[in-house]
Amino acid sequence: MRAVIITRPGDSKVLEIHELPTPEPVADQVLVRVRAAGLNRADIGQREGNYPAPAGSPAHIPGLEFAGEVAAVGPLVTKWKLGQRVMGIIGSGGQAEFLLSHEGMLVEIPANLDYIQAAAIPEVFMTAHDALFTQGGLQMGERVLIHAVGSGVGTAAVQLAHAVGATTYGTSRTQKKLEQAKPLGLTMGMTDANFAQEVAQATNGEGVHMVLDVVGAPYMEQNINALTTWGRMVFLATMGGKQANVDLLKVMMKRLTIRGCTLRSRTLDEKMTVTRRFATQVVPLFAHGSVQPIVEEIYPLHEIAHAHDVMEENKNFGKLILRID
Amino acid sequence: MRAVIITRPGDSKVLEIHELPTPEPVADQVLVRVRAAGLNRADIGQREGNYPAPAGSPAHIPGLEFAGEVAAVGPLVTKWKLGQRVMGIIGSGGQAEFLLSHEGMLVEIPANLDYIQAAAIPEVFMTAHDALFTQGGLQMGERVLIHAVGSGVGTAAVQLAHAVGATTYGTSRTQKKLEQAKPLGLTMGMTDANFAQEVAQATNGEGVHMVLDVVGAPYMEQNINALTTWGRMVFLATMGGKQANVDLLKVMMKRLTIRGCTLRSRTLDEKMTVTRRFATQVVPLFAHGSVQPIVEEIYPLHEIAHAHDVMEENKNFGKLILRID
Repeated sequence: MRAVIITRPGDSKVLEIHELPTPEPVADQVLVRVRAAGLNRADIGQREGNYPAPAGSPAHIPGLEFAGEVAAVGPLVTKWKLGQRVMGIIGSGGQAEFLLSHEGMLVEIPANLDYIQAAAIPEVFMTAHDALFTQGGLQMGERVLIHAVGSGVGTAAVQLAHAVGATTYGTSRTQKKLEQAKPLGLTMGMTDANFAQEVAQATNGEGVHMVLDVVGAPYMEQNINALTTWGRMVFLATMGGKQANVDLLKVMMKRLTIRGCTLRSRTLDEKMTVTRRFATQVVPLFAHGSVQPIVEEIYPLHEIAHAHDVMEENKNFGKLILRID
Repeated sequence: MRAVIITRPGDSKVLEIHELPTPEPVADQVLVRVRAAGLNRADIGQREGNYPAPAGSPAHIPGLEFAGEVAAVGPLVTKWKLGQRVMGIIGSGGQAEFLLSHEGMLVEIPANLDYIQAAAIPEVFMTAHDALFTQGGLQMGERVLIHAVGSGVGTAAVQLAHAVGATTYGTSRTQKKLEQAKPLGLTMGMTDANFAQEVAQATNGEGVHMVLDVVGAPYMEQNINALTTWGRMVFLATMGGKQANVDLLKVMMKRLTIRGCTLRSRTLDEKMTVTRRFATQVVPLFAHGSVQPIVEEIYPLHEIAHAHDVMEENKNFGKLILRID
């Protein structure tokens, strides 16, 4: 099989397409013929040697999400048949012609989506769904502030929150991304300098019930100020800094909850739970069209290095997808 | 009626016993003839003018908890009859011969407890129960670290955690208080300098599932280190400082939750929910004796100033109770 290979830590030139032996499924494993694979910013860290794959994953093959069809099944597999169209997340190894997945980590692709669209879904929608609903307990009608709303997770989050009747506030440093997020269900966008003040004005001083953050330390004080009583802050990354100063008295008086979480470091059973909840709660919304994958650009396998260069410019609004014919 | 009165902000000498008109219950109010009232450290703050009573409470009469009997009921009261023995928390006004309570804020006293014992229960056991179980989600068999385990809330928390089969670790600056907490169900006590390290050693490096904190900033780093994956930190006070430095990356990788909460600033419906959960889940444990109120000393009403002086020395292990004959 053909696969993207990280030949050594470095810039995009270290990425090559190699021919490797196709793996064989054992036990509860499913062999997937990958048709499309999403790119993620974490791929850059993995390529540079700063974000290692979890143990047991093919660390030299990048790729955290994929869409394709079932090509073979191990003897213990009960849920899948040859030819079924599936998508999923994986610790590493998605950017290859074939991969092995635990059968509990796969989700059937709704009939109205093609492989390219499906490959743009798992990582950002599972992350956003888990963060907003499972970790943050977002309820219908609540107000939520989504930082980096023009990012992959941001555009997924704003759609999911909008789909359950939440009022959505979003920040981005790029005015154009705020405009692009409007049709996805963004109630009000703001550039980030004084977001707590803007939230206060927009909510009659009441604040939001939830904040979804990826910035970390520089936003902490404003996040706390932006939250209303019993508010929840969930953060998925600390791109602006990890050593945050927290006013515990405010947290206490407002009865706030601060929770950090990542998908990647979770155990298999935890990831299967996330996958199952996603299949139950989010896939139907794709099927009836109330949320949709956002694809910015499609690259053939041999343009992987160029795709990384584009991703590093951080100008894309939607997902970059690798097509594996 | 006789009542403790804060005549002006100041030291214990500003406390006097005055004769005031007995209030009359309207609507859903219950008039309680108070027989005993607990003292709390918050009374000192209120006396000094630093911890004002919530709106609607008799701010000049201290007292956050009480035990007594139903003396009269408003026309909308459905749950209580004259003479029933009740206990409860109140925003202020517990240290008086009579008080008015919403009927939903009262709990019947189990038959095996007298008024003195009952007056030692509501504030610390409701706080500990809400923090450990409702806010922190403590589960049977988990490991919990309780700071200031010799305090009122600490001794309540260690008993409740022990009663559901949790393993309990506790800190105190006083070795004697650790010894006194042992028979209440404390698995292991430690003085506080290097508690994260001691917890790690005691748990094979796995850490605790929950931390109940009242110290705040100075303990934050060690609290984070002491927690295991998906651990929860609930803090009720910030006695050591409120500006905490938090390593968000650790919080994220361990998927930790940090939650602050207070009872006093909650709305009436929230306090009634806490009261109802307490009546359902904790009162039966008192009735069959698996948890018990800890009374250190009993003072008659006219010794209120002396009782405050004793409380300020912070040497008591159990509760200080005001007897109102």
